Amino acid sequence: MADKRKRRRSELNPDDEAQLPFKNRLKPDSAILQIIKEFGDCSTAPSSSSSKTLEDLGLSSTCREVTDLSLSSVQSTIESLILKIARSILSGNGFAFDVPSRSAANQLYVPELDRIVLKDKTALRPYANISTVRKSTITTRILQLVHQLCMKNIHVTKRDLFYTDVKLFQDQTQSDSVLDDVSCILGCTRSSLNVIAAEKGVVVGRLIFSDNGDMIDCTKMGMGGKAIPPNIDRVGDMQSDALFILLVEKDAAYIRLAEDRFYNRFPCIIVTAKGQPDVATRLFLRKMKMELKLPVLALVDSDPYGLKILSVYGCGSKNMSYDSANLTTPDIKWLGIRPSDLDKYKIPEQCRLPMTEQDIKTGKDLLEEDFVKKNPGWVEELTLMVKTKQKAEIQALSSFGFQYLSEVYLPLKLQQKDWL
Amino acid sequence: MADKRKRRRSELNPDDEAQLPFKNRLKPDSAILQIIKEFGDCSTAPSSSSSKTLEDLGLSSTCREVTDLSLSSVQSTIESLILKIARSILSGNGFAFDVPSRSAANQLYVPELDRIVLKDKTALRPYANISTVRKSTITTRILQLVHQLCMKNIHVTKRDLFYTDVKLFQDQTQSDSVLDDVSCILGCTRSSLNVIAAEKGVVVGRLIFSDNGDMIDCTKMGMGGKAIPPNIDRVGDMQSDALFILLVEKDAAYIRLAEDRFYNRFPCIIVTAKGQPDVATRLFLRKMKMELKLPVLALVDSDPYGLKILSVYGCGSKNMSYDSANLTTPDIKWLGIRPSDLDKYKIPEQCRLPMTEQDIKTGKDLLEEDFVKKNPGWVEELTLMVKTKQKAEIQALSSFGFQYLSEVYLPLKLQQKDWL
Repeated sequence: MADKRKRRRSELNPDDEAQLPFKNRLKPDSAILQIIKEFGDCSTAPSSSSSKTLEDLGLSSTCREVTDLSLSSVQSTIESLILKIARSILSGNGFAFDVPSRSAANQLYVPELDRIVLKDKTALRPYANISTVRKSTITTRILQLVHQLCMKNIHVTKRDLFYTDVKLFQDQTQSDSVLDDVSCILGCTRSSLNVIAAEKGVVVGRLIFSDNGDMIDCTKMGMGGKAIPPNIDRVGDMQSDALFILLVEKDAAYIRLAEDRFYNRFPCIIVTAKGQPDVATRLFLRKMKMELKLPVLALVDSDPYGLKILSVYGCGSKNMSYDSANLTTPDIKWLGIRPSDLDKYKIPEQCRLPMTEQDIKTGKDLLEEDFVKKNPGWVEELTLMVKTKQKAEIQALSSFGFQYLSEVYLPLKLQQKDWL
Repeated sequence: MADKRKRRRSELNPDDEAQLPFKNRLKPDSAILQIIKEFGDCSTAPSSSSSKTLEDLGLSSTCREVTDLSLSSVQSTIESLILKIARSILSGNGFAFDVPSRSAANQLYVPELDRIVLKDKTALRPYANISTVRKSTITTRILQLVHQLCMKNIHVTKRDLFYTDVKLFQDQTQSDSVLDDVSCILGCTRSSLNVIAAEKGVVVGRLIFSDNGDMIDCTKMGMGGKAIPPNIDRVGDMQSDALFILLVEKDAAYIRLAEDRFYNRFPCIIVTAKGQPDVATRLFLRKMKMELKLPVLALVDSDPYGLKILSVYGCGSKNMSYDSANLTTPDIKWLGIRPSDLDKYKIPEQCRLPMTEQDIKTGKDLLEEDFVKKNPGWVEELTLMVKTKQKAEIQALSSFGFQYLSEVYLPLKLQQKDWL
């Protein structure tokens, strides 16, 4: 009982034996800043994965990628396509779309690029066929609607698009899926179509950028931060004196760091999508990385989903592999919480959670994925997770005091260059 | 077929017969602005529900409400409580908390206040009783943690709080529920405890306010808008030249209005919690209404959940009835989409959705709720919804063109003072 009381107290008081060894190891901030600066200088040297293209690898004829197109290019591409179809009808060859396949069998992980891309298989979608008549009609309608968006230069959500013709689309999965087809057919990103996803992410810290013409200073956004705009094409003029970008999985950790103004002690930009990465946050992160040439350090839960989220930011989701070049951020480092941190930082047993059968299966599946296998450090950590069958959330660090994350854990991680 | 083609086209082209009658009815913007100004002047005269308190109604002894307390008051209230308990133990009377009951039976809708309040029933939570020993231990621990937060002057999330003692709390519902108890015991709001909910809402338009010391101009937040801060106690200095606040249920409509900069044509503040209202957005809306004295107009889906969301903003949720005075915004007007709008604005059949059995049940239940019954206009609309068994989302207006919402529907609604 006495022992128990002692342990309880030790979780509370940030200055006692359980974490003193870690706090004592911290060097002065200036020394830590020097370490991050050196890392930043190395990591922004042209890396193998970020600079190569499908063409460099001789894959441009067998793989397919979309690019950002201007509104007028999208418009003229649609017009050419429709003219081509009209000519085909007039010459007696009928009406069909040639649609790139987005199925798993047509996807490929390219290690040199460190992301998933789409291969070149396509399927014909003729109007004069009972099995494809609906889909080819929907495709035509979506093309027409996107053409309208180009002419008006406005953005709409997928939901808006669906509601323009509920009777034809029947449910939103059908218009959403054909919208992805249309991206592939036209060879442009979904953002180029002016169809946007609802916004979810927030950003705070040493970043200035323009959103639809307004200049935003993210050091002056209080604790709430700036909502990441849904339309990346109206984001520009990024400036920053940050040394790194801190990508945070969850809201709670983000709030802690924003309130403590962590970005003023260690100049950085803090960004979160509050869980599953959405397209807007992925585009925003990539744009920051590319324009500011900063290293990206990720703080995620120590569970298979944390790693999965990291992989979506880094290598893309299978669902949108046709657009992986624009949606992925190369060379994200796994800072924490890593399975080996649980023992290293003496996370109390009661803050670790047993993995469910499903967790363990997801973990084992991830071990088979190429984007995990190419990083031996990640394989080692994930193997440890699956072996110990333990997971932990970022919030588990609160057991050492609410500000342990910002005052001890992160500074020590940075000082020790403890990322993979 | 010819007829069908014609109808299709009519959904597309914003200028043709289906909506021309509505567009033609629009007066010049200056006339509409005058109408809103007059409404604002009337609606900000002291209204019956917003100014009265429990004390005015002679209910202060039978009902219980919490107030915003300063950190030092929370701290000293906790200290007095613990001293009282210590004295009780020393005098041989043992250790127990007197906890206000938050059950449905202890809740009351007060028509004069137009919100749900908590009655005065309490229950004893003794330590020396097998059925309450755990809960009284958890209560003590939460009090201790909140006391720490006061001394450090930092904010944490409920999730952080849970992780400080997983072994004791076991799961987060237990620490969350006791946290609400602690609010009631201390007689202060949850925000006063420095425990915050994750942020979700965004705001854009004619509003300037300070967030944690930074001045934020919401006309200069691009399309993304400003994330509503999780901690209302660090929000202040609100200034605005808006004529009204437009409360929007969903993200998609918010994005449309933000991109079109609707707030520049009709000076307003646009706010959304992206679905279910969270505590931060509810506090923020109330603060705007109270400090700026602006009318609030709500744009929600025409379904029972839209009305339910409206009622949570207006009258509070049952779960947090003890804090309804701080969380609710009096006198919110139901602008649209209202069931009668479906025919009035000729929303095409295919954009209306049939209500499910559950929808109809929820609608009928709402008809029995006091906060619906007190407004005959709402009863009429809800009765129509349940009778026609049809619902529609805000996005259904996209069937008349993507900008129909911002260019025709809302201006006409304002011009006709068509709110309830």
